[in-house]
Amino acid sequence: MGTPNSVEDWKKIREDANAGLMAKSNLNIKRFFNLDTKAYHDGALPAKTKELLGLVASMVLRCDDCITYHIIQSVLAGVTDEELYETFNVALIVGGSIVIPHLRRAATRLEECRELEKTDPKLLSLDSTE
Amino acid sequence: MGTPNSVEDWKKIREDANAGLMAKSNLNIKRFFNLDTKAYHDGALPAKTKELLGLVASMVLRCDDCITYHIIQSVLAGVTDEELYETFNVALIVGGSIVIPHLRRAATRLEECRELEKTDPKLLSLDSTE
Amino acid sequence: MGTPNSVEDWKKIREDANAGLMAKSNLNIKRFFNLDTKAYHDGALPAKTKELLGLVASMVLRCDDCITYHIIQSVLAGVTDEELYETFNVALIVGGSIVIPHLRRAATRLEECRELEKTDPKLLSLDSTE
Amino acid sequence: MGTPNSVEDWKKIREDANAGLMAKSNLNIKRFFNLDTKAYHDGALPAKTKELLGLVASMVLRCDDCITYHIIQSVLAGVTDEELYETFNVALIVGGSIVIPHLRRAATRLEECRELEKTDPKLLSLDSTE
Amino acid sequence: MGTPNSVEDWKKIREDANAGLMAKSNLNIKRFFNLDTKAYHDGALPAKTKELLGLVASMVLRCDDCITYHIIQSVLAGVTDEELYETFNVALIVGGSIVIPHLRRAATRLEECRELEKTDPKLLSLDSTE
Amino acid sequence: MGTPNSVEDWKKIREDANAGLMAKSNLNIKRFFNLDTKAYHDGALPAKTKELLGLVASMVLRCDDCITYHIIQSVLAGVTDEELYETFNVALIVGGSIVIPHLRRAATRLEECRELEKTDPKLLSLDSTE
Repeated sequence: MGTPNSVEDWKKIREDANAGLMAKSNLNIKRFFNLDTKAYHDGALPAKTKELLGLVASMVLRCDDCITYHIIQSVLAGVTDEELYETFNVALIVGGSIVIPHLRRAATRLEECRELEKTDPKLLSLDSTE
Repeated sequence: MGTPNSVEDWKKIREDANAGLMAKSNLNIKRFFNLDTKAYHDGALPAKTKELLGLVASMVLRCDDCITYHIIQSVLAGVTDEELYETFNVALIVGGSIVIPHLRRAATRLEECRELEKTDPKLLSLDSTE
Repeated sequence: MGTPNSVEDWKKIREDANAGLMAKSNLNIKRFFNLDTKAYHDGALPAKTKELLGLVASMVLRCDDCITYHIIQSVLAGVTDEELYETFNVALIVGGSIVIPHLRRAATRLEECRELEKTDPKLLSLDSTE
Repeated sequence: MGTPNSVEDWKKIREDANAGLMAKSNLNIKRFFNLDTKAYHDGALPAKTKELLGLVASMVLRCDDCITYHIIQSVLAGVTDEELYETFNVALIVGGSIVIPHLRRAATRLEECRELEKTDPKLLSLDSTE
Repeated sequence: MGTPNSVEDWKKIREDANAGLMAKSNLNIKRFFNLDTKAYHDGALPAKTKELLGLVASMVLRCDDCITYHIIQSVLAGVTDEELYETFNVALIVGGSIVIPHLRRAATRLEECRELEKTDPKLLSLDSTE
Repeated sequence: MGTPNSVEDWKKIREDANAGLMAKSNLNIKRFFNLDTKAYHDGALPAKTKELLGLVASMVLRCDDCITYHIIQSVLAGVTDEELYETFNVALIVGGSIVIPHLRRAATRLEECRELEKTDPKLLSLDSTE
């Protein structure tokens, strides 16, 4: 399956694998995906805060795909670098040095997202979850 | 060491054990505790949001002590029940059903904190971290 | 909240906390609970096998509440001790020695369930999930 | 070491690394590997069920290599897609959305195994564990 | 099953549950226990160092029973408080603040072990693993 | 970002990403990196033992980057293969078969480090942590 070298590669690999998964998934898996999407919608807490909640959870559980997903969503929601780095810091403190390699990759992904924001913002839009 | 039946018991057990730990801890452990406290201070993100980040991270990593700590801090920071339950939902979606027993205990702790808020709010104040 | 000394205590603590959680939960949390229940119903795989899947997952993730729940459900579904101990062994091999304290408590819970089966089988029935 | 793009690549990388590990391993590591193999043999539970136990445990612990291994073994043991997707659903419910990226890759691997079953079934046979 | 208030209680609960587990365990589980014991014997690395390896692994995986076990074994092997606190610090740095509640309980257990060393050293001896 | 095929690739990817992370990191993140470095310095325990503590913690938490880092540091500190394989065995026993894929990659990395030791030892030196 390879390892994505860019946000663009990452999106392509993710969309292809998602199509395969959805073609075969039973109703309960599809319902879970639906609940997953809803968890990040505006409510008592704004969507922006919920993306940061999803990001910090993904960082302490150490899932690069989920981290990339929530960084993209956070950038689209207008979160600043300062806010993202304070979120990174909470993840680092709660989760420890084992989070550092993911932090390094998150920093690279964020930089890449900031570039895409300027040059080709539609590359940042995603269809569904995690 | 026993299992705390109330927020009051929990605070007592925690403070006693903390005193023992701090009496023996080396400088590096103390420095970590200092960084831990700072991670939740107002910055680009408000302290209130950072407590919710700490809470969701504690929930997906499934640590009851840390959950109790961040629920107390969230209540002190003025977070509403609706906001807390949306945070619980993000933790449940990201972390799965394995989070449910901690959610149950979190619901009980939160209810207890709302009672203390009315009757004896100073019982909610804590000295230090996690 | 205390630590349950018996399956009976465990059920009481769980039901009380569940009532508190459900009284406050938003719709998405309730929907998750619904999906959770459905995951263990008869389908292409029988409910009995799915309980063992839930049990091994709970063991490697090391959640005593979830282990107690799935042991009760397995006993109700007619799983034998030999089948349960082979499941314990898969959990031990995949998850390592860190699983052992949970295995010890699981063995005690199972023995207790076998007693209740003979003396008061209705004590084993549960309302909902995990 | 690279990331395997196909089951065939995955087998090659795994066998090479395994040879290096076994050449240096002490007796206790070799004994563990022996116990690991035995855990999935027919017993009170059939081998097929044990592969699904290994699969769900690997999914909630989120190890792609172990997931690929148990999908291959399940396919060889005659497990159907419907049975595998119900197992995926238990893993998703217990482990949460953090499991989704692994589910996506599992769906791709499974599709590939179904192809190999038709065209070159001996590519699916493996020597040893995880 | 209750929560142990002292090393003495902890030993009693552990021995009772162990007896139940061993009475029913299949041969593969027993073989795992045997390998587990051997992992901490003197070899290229001294037993003392291996106990610290077991301790740091138990701390980052956050298992209080395993932590109590390895603290007792470390005390019996002659490890000093300074050495133990440096091990605690590695666990805290690698595993993050989520380790803190376990560190607090470890500090209490260690203090208790130092008392027993003076007053009733045979209370520290254990039969088997984790 | 790709997956490193050699220790040399791994160093290059890590240094580039580190530079990006450090350029943006806030003071608290930098302070954490400082504490992380200090945790492995000579103290009551020698640096060599602390590297093995870091290695076993990284193995049971299953982080390949951290494992590569601590293997390099261990080799530089003069740890023998026998000592490393006994550390691998403790990680395997505590963490279970889910550790095996990481063990396989660790064996390959170690072999590579032994080659570099003979041919180009300066390739093994690293700037900072994890």
